[in-house]
Amino acid sequence: LAVRLVCSGFRVLVGSRNPKRKAGLFPAAAEVTGRAEAAKRADVIFVAVFREHYSTLCDLADVLVGKILVDVSNNTEINHHKESNAEYLASLFPACTVVKGFNVVSAWTLQSGARDGNKQVLICSNSQEAKRTVAEIAQVMGFTPVDMGCMASAREIENIPLRLLPAWKIPIFLALGLFLCFFTYNLIRQVVHPYIREQKNKLYKIPIEVVNTTLPCVSYVMLSLVYLPGVLAACSQLYYGTKYRRFPDWLDQWLQHRKQMGLLSFFCAALHAVYSLCLPLRRSHRYLLIETAVKQAVEKKMTIWVEEEVWRMEIYISVGIIALGLLSLLAITSLPSIANSLNWREFSFIQ
Amino acid sequence: LAVRLVCSGFRVLVGSRNPKRKAGLFPAAAEVTGRAEAAKRADVIFVAVFREHYSTLCDLADVLVGKILVDVSNNTEINHHKESNAEYLASLFPACTVVKGFNVVSAWTLQSGARDGNKQVLICSNSQEAKRTVAEIAQVMGFTPVDMGCMASAREIENIPLRLLPAWKIPIFLALGLFLCFFTYNLIRQVVHPYIREQKNKLYKIPIEVVNTTLPCVSYVMLSLVYLPGVLAACSQLYYGTKYRRFPDWLDQWLQHRKQMGLLSFFCAALHAVYSLCLPLRRSHRYLLIETAVKQAVEKKMTIWVEEEVWRMEIYISVGIIALGLLSLLAITSLPSIANSLNWREFSFIQ
Amino acid sequence: LAVRLVCSGFRVLVGSRNPKRKAGLFPAAAEVTGRAEAAKRADVIFVAVFREHYSTLCDLADVLVGKILVDVSNNTEINHHKESNAEYLASLFPACTVVKGFNVVSAWTLQSGARDGNKQVLICSNSQEAKRTVAEIAQVMGFTPVDMGCMASAREIENIPLRLLPAWKIPIFLALGLFLCFFTYNLIRQVVHPYIREQKNKLYKIPIEVVNTTLPCVSYVMLSLVYLPGVLAACSQLYYGTKYRRFPDWLDQWLQHRKQMGLLSFFCAALHAVYSLCLPLRRSHRYLLIETAVKQAVEKKMTIWVEEEVWRMEIYISVGIIALGLLSLLAITSLPSIANSLNWREFSFIQ
Repeated sequence: LAVRLVCSGFRVLVGSRNPKRKAGLFPAAAEVTGRAEAAKRADVIFVAVFREHYSTLCDLADVLVGKILVDVSNNTEINHHKESNAEYLASLFPACTVVKGFNVVSAWTLQSGARDGNKQVLICSNSQEAKRTVAEIAQVMGFTPVDMGCMASAREIENIPLRLLPAWKIPIFLALGLFLCFFTYNLIRQVVHPYIREQKNKLYKIPIEVVNTTLPCVSYVMLSLVYLPGVLAACSQLYYGTKYRRFPDWLDQWLQHRKQMGLLSFFCAALHAVYSLCLPLRRSHRYLLIETAVKQAVEKKMTIWVEEEVWRMEIYISVGIIALGLLSLLAITSLPSIANSLNWREFSFIQ
Repeated sequence: LAVRLVCSGFRVLVGSRNPKRKAGLFPAAAEVTGRAEAAKRADVIFVAVFREHYSTLCDLADVLVGKILVDVSNNTEINHHKESNAEYLASLFPACTVVKGFNVVSAWTLQSGARDGNKQVLICSNSQEAKRTVAEIAQVMGFTPVDMGCMASAREIENIPLRLLPAWKIPIFLALGLFLCFFTYNLIRQVVHPYIREQKNKLYKIPIEVVNTTLPCVSYVMLSLVYLPGVLAACSQLYYGTKYRRFPDWLDQWLQHRKQMGLLSFFCAALHAVYSLCLPLRRSHRYLLIETAVKQAVEKKMTIWVEEEVWRMEIYISVGIIALGLLSLLAITSLPSIANSLNWREFSFIQ
Repeated sequence: LAVRLVCSGFRVLVGSRNPKRKAGLFPAAAEVTGRAEAAKRADVIFVAVFREHYSTLCDLADVLVGKILVDVSNNTEINHHKESNAEYLASLFPACTVVKGFNVVSAWTLQSGARDGNKQVLICSNSQEAKRTVAEIAQVMGFTPVDMGCMASAREIENIPLRLLPAWKIPIFLALGLFLCFFTYNLIRQVVHPYIREQKNKLYKIPIEVVNTTLPCVSYVMLSLVYLPGVLAACSQLYYGTKYRRFPDWLDQWLQHRKQMGLLSFFCAALHAVYSLCLPLRRSHRYLLIETAVKQAVEKKMTIWVEEEVWRMEIYISVGIIALGLLSLLAITSLPSIANSLNWREFSFIQ
């Protein structure tokens, strides 16, 4: 933080309990002094201290009166404490203006500047003035300040860096489970069964053909799981005769994961399309084709055209392409920037 | 709205003309009372009343003085009334601060919380303070408040939920029309004509081959329609010798639909690519190949290599891939979040 | 600007040194008068004058006191002057409030309204009140005002319209260079060498096969260049024993171009996939297949199955699809709207 502030042209004072020991760690332009000294001279104070040590600042309470304290702390667990760190800090220093911010930016991004990935700095505070001051600091540092409203948002902002794709966990494990089931079934059907019955070695089918027949099964089941909870929710509303009753928790959870399940369904469908398109690239396809041709030639059979087979394949492929095209449209509308440009009528029309 | 406000920790008072009849419809935590009572005790008042009934609130005018009224109403038609509902409400209660907001959020999203789709709540008001209060309520409810400026934006905000992809209607019907024309032409050429002349049954070509030769025609015409109006506009400016004359309406309309036409052109081109890649997957392809091989083998012709045919196909495919690659770049830059990160020099460079 | 302001319902006064000569150029609704007259009657003044002529406004200093001056100027070079135009204007008129804005919008967009492309108007000023006034004007004109903080951001805002994909230049030239090298190597290996050694004409391979073997080479090298600088940076930190030392400039530059190199790597990989899928569409593929079949049939060899070849190809293709799938996920997370919804833990997890 100090490095970035210095690089952005701010005058930085580092207040430490051991100014001498810390001096070497900071850029030359940042002056390292004692805590009280720094608190007295600075206008905006970044409190880079663990929550447990906030109380050690209490002896500075007099010099801190009227200053802006920026709480940059993070927790190790989601909703670890009853009140957020920033609210706790505000309760310790009622005479200061506390702003939550900069905790969502990684140390690496702080040190090397905002490059790729997320450039947003989420800020909240009960004071508009203090929020604006910190937002302008973030702006000059090259980040995009985002106003998250009043102090009540601090808990949410502190939880953000601890999230690891929470909405994706259940859908991904579900998709993996479905994949394993269908893969086993297809393996038995396409490889094990012909081997046992006719002693034919079809092991070469495992990497592509078995995977390729498994993917659309997963995709279909996932897609139906996207639309099923809506139907169940409607039924539950009809049954209880009211729209104002909360759904049971499992249904609520399910409704919340629909978008992720839909995207996984699309991912499987897209992979299935690529796998299918790769089928004629394979050596095995080539060999089987040539062997059929040779067999036909030797037997002097001039025609092998089966109208029914031709039609079946033409219709399969053509329906598959149309389905993938429609699913792509759905997937594109789930991009945040597209979703934000659609109103709910357009969104449900597309769905 | 009441359900979501209660879930977000707000104290909700429901004011109704029939408090007894309505009580059962609201969550237990929301207290249902008479209108006057609710208006007196609340700080922010959500006016969930139809525009025609705004005047019924006039007898509450005294208790409403100085309060924030949030107009959440929607219309049934775009630009139905001369002034927006929010402005009408503001004119009825000059002593109140009116904020427009929450009308772009569907009842479903309000009840179940912001999950997928659009989380934005567009807010406008002439009072900064009131706007901020409502924005913080939206924030705590899990939505993303978007400041739309002063009251003059209310009309626009009220029109938003009534839109149904207005910019797409003309381009989509145009593309469908073009598709039908070219499809008929190709059907006659590839299926009907061989049948009449040589009694050959080529019906199996309809689902894939005829569609596949139709798609690039549509794509080309749509793409040329994207760039043609720019040329016409430049000509019109040269002819009239000024850049400050407005274009005729039809040209203006056309210029406004270019992005959508370009995206439909890309969609057709992408479908054409997928259809083409599927050609060797078809049974008919396989049969024709084997039949040719058998015929050659029986006649003992060892070579069928035609250098010209080979080159033609290599060049077709290679130009097709490059064209699709370039069109993909154009399509990607039309994503809102990418377009917003490009300046106009970069945008026109890519175009 | 005047056209758009008039269309958006504002009353526009054009102040010119030659009001008579200019009158014809503006829409009828805009009144054209002398400079002093316009300055006196307007509340918000758009200073559409070159920086060199700012001083010609000094004789209007008295009438301008307390007014909002909007600096819409652009430079011809990045960081041309020591201080930004807006800051220079503010220093000339200390009694006015200067707002930087509208310079990132092209004349075309101003004239015809915000349609596609970037609709953002970046605004900065030291006065919140003035910034809000200008933001509301932008909003009513159909643009999206973006608050860029205090006057110190003016330099950045003035540099934006001059940028032409600066982060892409090095990666694109690098990719082109790599493509040329590998293309030459593959051309010699696949076309020149067989011609010299066996007098075989394989020129038809150039447009597709040679390009197709070149693309994955470029893609691999670019992908390794994405992850190499991170390793080098870590080594440099281990060597110097500190995380607080700045990297050498070349490494810093390299770290900044990783995203673009990764996207080019993905682009090459995707093109390689499309090229590979097109292989069986080619006439040459068909001819070679039929010729092999005929040769086999004439020699009455019934089988040509080579288990090793079959397995090699199945594994190549299947690993290729999985690699492309993973690379697609990386590419999708680099979309600005997706990147902004990920925290750094999620971003590095996906990487």
